[in-house]
Amino acid sequence: MSASTALMTDRYELTMLDAALRDGTAGRRCVFELFARRLSGGRRFGVVGGTGRLLSLLRDFRFGDDELRFLRDGGVVSPEAVTYLENYRFTGSMTGYREGELYFPGSPILTVEGSFADAVILETLALSVLNHDSAVATAASRMSIAAGDRPLAEMGSRRTNEASAIASARIAYIAGFHATSNLEAGRAWGIPTMGTAAHAWTLLHDSEEDAFRAQIESLGTGTTLLVDTYDIRKGVETAIRVAGTELGGVRLDSGDLPTVAASVRAQLDELGATGTKITVTSDLDEYAIAALAASPVDAYGVGTSVVTGSGHPAAGMVYKLVARQGSDGGWVSVSKTAEGKGSQGGRKNAFRVLENGTAVQELVEVADGFEQLSPASEYPDARALQVPLVIDGEPVAEHEGAAGVAAAREHHLRVREELPIRALALSRSDPAIPTIYKDAGEA
Amino acid sequence: MSASTALMTDRYELTMLDAALRDGTAGRRCVFELFARRLSGGRRFGVVGGTGRLLSLLRDFRFGDDELRFLRDGGVVSPEAVTYLENYRFTGSMTGYREGELYFPGSPILTVEGSFADAVILETLALSVLNHDSAVATAASRMSIAAGDRPLAEMGSRRTNEASAIASARIAYIAGFHATSNLEAGRAWGIPTMGTAAHAWTLLHDSEEDAFRAQIESLGTGTTLLVDTYDIRKGVETAIRVAGTELGGVRLDSGDLPTVAASVRAQLDELGATGTKITVTSDLDEYAIAALAASPVDAYGVGTSVVTGSGHPAAGMVYKLVARQGSDGGWVSVSKTAEGKGSQGGRKNAFRVLENGTAVQELVEVADGFEQLSPASEYPDARALQVPLVIDGEPVAEHEGAAGVAAAREHHLRVREELPIRALALSRSDPAIPTIYKDAGEA
Repeated sequence: MSASTALMTDRYELTMLDAALRDGTAGRRCVFELFARRLSGGRRFGVVGGTGRLLSLLRDFRFGDDELRFLRDGGVVSPEAVTYLENYRFTGSMTGYREGELYFPGSPILTVEGSFADAVILETLALSVLNHDSAVATAASRMSIAAGDRPLAEMGSRRTNEASAIASARIAYIAGFHATSNLEAGRAWGIPTMGTAAHAWTLLHDSEEDAFRAQIESLGTGTTLLVDTYDIRKGVETAIRVAGTELGGVRLDSGDLPTVAASVRAQLDELGATGTKITVTSDLDEYAIAALAASPVDAYGVGTSVVTGSGHPAAGMVYKLVARQGSDGGWVSVSKTAEGKGSQGGRKNAFRVLENGTAVQELVEVADGFEQLSPASEYPDARALQVPLVIDGEPVAEHEGAAGVAAAREHHLRVREELPIRALALSRSDPAIPTIYKDAGEA
Repeated sequence: MSASTALMTDRYELTMLDAALRDGTAGRRCVFELFARRLSGGRRFGVVGGTGRLLSLLRDFRFGDDELRFLRDGGVVSPEAVTYLENYRFTGSMTGYREGELYFPGSPILTVEGSFADAVILETLALSVLNHDSAVATAASRMSIAAGDRPLAEMGSRRTNEASAIASARIAYIAGFHATSNLEAGRAWGIPTMGTAAHAWTLLHDSEEDAFRAQIESLGTGTTLLVDTYDIRKGVETAIRVAGTELGGVRLDSGDLPTVAASVRAQLDELGATGTKITVTSDLDEYAIAALAASPVDAYGVGTSVVTGSGHPAAGMVYKLVARQGSDGGWVSVSKTAEGKGSQGGRKNAFRVLENGTAVQELVEVADGFEQLSPASEYPDARALQVPLVIDGEPVAEHEGAAGVAAAREHHLRVREELPIRALALSRSDPAIPTIYKDAGEA
């Protein structure tokens, strides 16, 4: 794959740009907005994911020789458009919700300002990153809430595309997970990595005992042994015989977990291994985690369900033109009226209104034209939700890299505290707080 | 991201390798098998996806300075293991199902042979690629069957991770789609790209008429106009007024499609635009496509549902040790017995048994030890399903790149013809043909 991200783009964006260059609209200043019309799956809140990644990918959104050759030779766009793209670099600005922030229907998660040509071609990349990462973030945050204080590890790399796996490990950590099995996520984003052993490890050896002994010799008594390759009861017995009662942990990857965990706990206690922890990893999702709250489980490992958004792998965000300059240079709010897919025109400012520290409303002020609104002073108990992300084409570096990940995780855990209690339930419902639109003039 | 794929790996694979280097089992010859215990979602067949990508990613599975530094400084493995990994290159072999081939529960989709150290660390990468791509392939093939002869385009890039998007476009094409909106998939894999225009294009202009006129001037009368930004009836009227009755097509992206398509067809015919085609793109999946079979629709564009595997984003494949050398050098079949997750030990050969050209059985011969089976002559009406994919560490190049994609698509469309009629129904059911295991000795 090319190091350029410029062709992670739907063809129609470039053909629209081409047509706009011809008819003179390419230079019209535009405001695009990325938002979700609803929360997938009856979720009570959404979690913004991917912002830091998007900024880094934007740095590589340049058309190099390979990209230009493809566009030219394939006749995708005209020679004039190829020339334009040769020099393309996003020079507009982006403001938006911090990564890890919560969102609700209509929240203006990302606002992109620039010429039509500048902004229209970022639609696919912005949506790919934010739809995927936010879907995983939202599922992960619910799992993290369900797990309470127990450590939670992301282990789903094998159940999603190899690049999605890295992004998923990253965003699950931001949303409250404690570690990942994915080594590249550790290297690239500074996320703690963890692991136990596979069934293959036991099967490789002439006996389960040989396998356990070798693992302990290599990783120490604090390691976690996988005890369900053959018979769990015998596995636990062998584990403690080999490791002693100081064994760090055992992992259970099959069976009816509440039952099995209780019987393994009893067996470990009987054998004197009262400090040996139990990690469970079999087909967990937020509901299974919640159902194990009263079981003697010490840590969870989650695979498929977190990396696939627990039934909702895409967050359903869209990228819409909400305001533009008209032929007279003045600003016009625009919106489509397609059935069931309407949008709210106009540039927006967003605030989370709090009462005694608890969120009660997502307040979205809608500007008539383009002017930057700054009415925060009108809402003493409201938190302004938008921050600068890209200024004159330059990404704000604090959101990127490992430092960005750490800051996003901290932000997420802090703002989650503002949620009303009803937001923490797992069942399908309406959003936990309503989104209220207000004309800027009313302030 | 690093160009190396070596850390797209779960941590436990490297710690197992480390422990195996210490206890002398790292060199034991092993056979790992990648297979699915069941078909997700009551599907009647599965489609193998990702093989060609896996081979190319395997070429980059080398530990470079960045990867080694991370492993050493993070204390992931011992210095001895770091030294081993420094020189790591897969030197084993792989055989397996061709990309685009059908599979059923237990089909030995990929067989990896090598030392334990060689083969154990490919688990995550192999599963990530095949689980993701096969999930998309299976959904895409069902959509392709439902669409019949009507063109089908993949337009889901914005609904999945930006790298998954490219892989999804590639595998949807292999599974019968005709084109993609994703430009990088066009560049990297030679897949035809397509596109129309977005609502933003209409909103950018002072009127819908201006927008249509500019699009036609740029792309010609053969283009497809998006007619539902405001009022569909007026949009169609404007489209034909501006383009004339030779307009290539109109796109509908909202509303109750059977109703809307019928009324738009009637309006187009009334206006004399009898050759203008109707493309529909709103929230389609295989069921919606099938429901439109009798509607006057000419082409489909599918987004979210294809790139997310239509409700089943991971194929549920696993990678298990099935045979290994014992301490005496002889071969041992191995399998775990964990509840609900058992596996069938032993190296396998697979055949699709046909009767009058129709598949009736997935025949899986299980070897007692390691020996290469070659009983094809015993089954005159059976097709051998496994081909060499990697020989002594070297990927077989014909499966890679754009040529590999073209060959896989051709293979898929050919073998799909072997399916019995009942396999083509969309409702949940058992696999279309049974998987029969047979001891090699019985042949």
